[in-house]
Amino acid sequence: MTKKKRILSGMRPTGPLHLGNLHGALANWIKIQNEYDCFFFIADWHALTSDYENTGSIGKNIDNMMIDWLSAGLSPDLCTMFVQSQVKEHSELFLLLSMITPVPWLERNPTYKDQIVQMGNKDLSTFGFLGYPVLQTADIILYKGDSVPVGVDQVPHIEIAREIVRRFNYLFDDVFPEPEAVLTESPKILGIDRRKMSKSYNNAIYLSDTPDEVMSKISKMITDPQRGRKSDPGNPDICNVFEFHKLYSSSDTAEQLNKECRTAGIGCVECKKIMGKSLLNFLEPIHDKRKDYESRPDFIADIVAAGCSKAREIAQKTMEEVRAAVKI
Amino acid sequence: MTKKKRILSGMRPTGPLHLGNLHGALANWIKIQNEYDCFFFIADWHALTSDYENTGSIGKNIDNMMIDWLSAGLSPDLCTMFVQSQVKEHSELFLLLSMITPVPWLERNPTYKDQIVQMGNKDLSTFGFLGYPVLQTADIILYKGDSVPVGVDQVPHIEIAREIVRRFNYLFDDVFPEPEAVLTESPKILGIDRRKMSKSYNNAIYLSDTPDEVMSKISKMITDPQRGRKSDPGNPDICNVFEFHKLYSSSDTAEQLNKECRTAGIGCVECKKIMGKSLLNFLEPIHDKRKDYESRPDFIADIVAAGCSKAREIAQKTMEEVRAAVKI
Repeated sequence: MTKKKRILSGMRPTGPLHLGNLHGALANWIKIQNEYDCFFFIADWHALTSDYENTGSIGKNIDNMMIDWLSAGLSPDLCTMFVQSQVKEHSELFLLLSMITPVPWLERNPTYKDQIVQMGNKDLSTFGFLGYPVLQTADIILYKGDSVPVGVDQVPHIEIAREIVRRFNYLFDDVFPEPEAVLTESPKILGIDRRKMSKSYNNAIYLSDTPDEVMSKISKMITDPQRGRKSDPGNPDICNVFEFHKLYSSSDTAEQLNKECRTAGIGCVECKKIMGKSLLNFLEPIHDKRKDYESRPDFIADIVAAGCSKAREIAQKTMEEVRAAVKI
Repeated sequence: MTKKKRILSGMRPTGPLHLGNLHGALANWIKIQNEYDCFFFIADWHALTSDYENTGSIGKNIDNMMIDWLSAGLSPDLCTMFVQSQVKEHSELFLLLSMITPVPWLERNPTYKDQIVQMGNKDLSTFGFLGYPVLQTADIILYKGDSVPVGVDQVPHIEIAREIVRRFNYLFDDVFPEPEAVLTESPKILGIDRRKMSKSYNNAIYLSDTPDEVMSKISKMITDPQRGRKSDPGNPDICNVFEFHKLYSSSDTAEQLNKECRTAGIGCVECKKIMGKSLLNFLEPIHDKRKDYESRPDFIADIVAAGCSKAREIAQKTMEEVRAAVKI
């Protein structure tokens, strides 16, 4: 029996998870936890790179994120879940790797300047933000991760991680495997205003939204923008609500609505209600589990503590090897 | 009784200590350990900023440095001596501070580009070298240091530390005092070739040199360069050997040699021998103690362990306050 490959991946605790997070990352995690040796962490130190001016809600976000993860289907029996800042070795390895990482590698990182422009309302000219890929490298290789599931925009970061690993192994000793980026295919899910679903756009449907909140948000969704009146035929190919039907309604229902929309046989209001029911149906077990977990904070705390403890043990073992290699 | 002010200072373990290090820093430490609550640390992580390609001797250098410190007169009863990398909280605070430190503060640091030019044989374009002042800030404020004894070239680093502290206290909570730079006056002592005494110039007299090595180095010292022959009168004002006399010989002897040199009453060879005896006299108790300490490695290890443990306790307490302030 060959050893399972180890997967490392994290999320920043910047707020509750929405459907975009679920389909973009979490659904994939839930799938791969059965096949790989998975380590999933809440990247609270990373959250500071952009949110250092507003850290008040990080603690609450961490608790909530863990409940989101468990409610959606991550299982402590199948994967290791932990909080980054509870394992100090992340910072230790970050410091060591910073000594061998050339600044130009970080400055040339295409997502670096991109993000500075995109998040123009925040001052991101910090040393920590520049070093984001160094910390990310530490996060991965501290556990000798083989693979990292990423979106396209994250590929350059994994490239930097591989370069840092090669440099470390060359300068000191062959301690780390080069982590591999595994591109994650995910359905394209937009916010209720047809932009990318995002907390900062205020257009997201959250896993923790109540059924009423979900239905209210759905009622505001923009459909086919060219369909002015109910008597006009619509085009599901460009309708965001129809994308939701494809994910949450049965294929029969979706197929039928596809036809009725094109012949003006059904209006958007009714179509949204059907989709809303499908989505609530999909969310029901998640909501039920959330309710259960919310009533058992000690149970959650135990899962986190166990995950942190397991992660810490591995991290400390790696750091022993690192110290032996660096001779420090 | 007012509380003693706390002093923080460190040395990078890049090699054995020489007379320049002794008079430039260590002698001052030995003096102030009686008056202040002193924390002196071996900055092994800092050594990596410039010596990451050659770390093999760091371990040996740490042991040697501790023996140098003790032999010269630091006492574990009067001050706390520890090794930076043994207190992981340094890296943790470094990571946190990096999130709030603007890159331009570091790029504008006058000693940064200076050192890159000066150490042209080493590749210093690393992220860690750029972040040197951030790590130094963490080193100081982790213990809420009030003062830092520095040479003029280090003043900009303390300025950055003060700015980072102000920013932290403003963004989060009033956790840290602003550390103060205390300029250390020290006698100007040059290497045997009249350049700055430095390991890399191969012109240094080490605390651990044997008497034969000391005398041999002294015999090669450049004196008044304008004095060609013994029968020429010399000028002690520009003679490096005379500077040594002022430090190590009695004032009577120095005064007499001052006169004899100017009248060609004594040659450089003989003058050096007298100085050599004075220097060996000065070094004798240091050599004796070194011999003793070298024969008791466990005793040294215990001192280091006790120092690290005391430092760690304070560092962990500070980090609790930091985490409470940052809410992470």
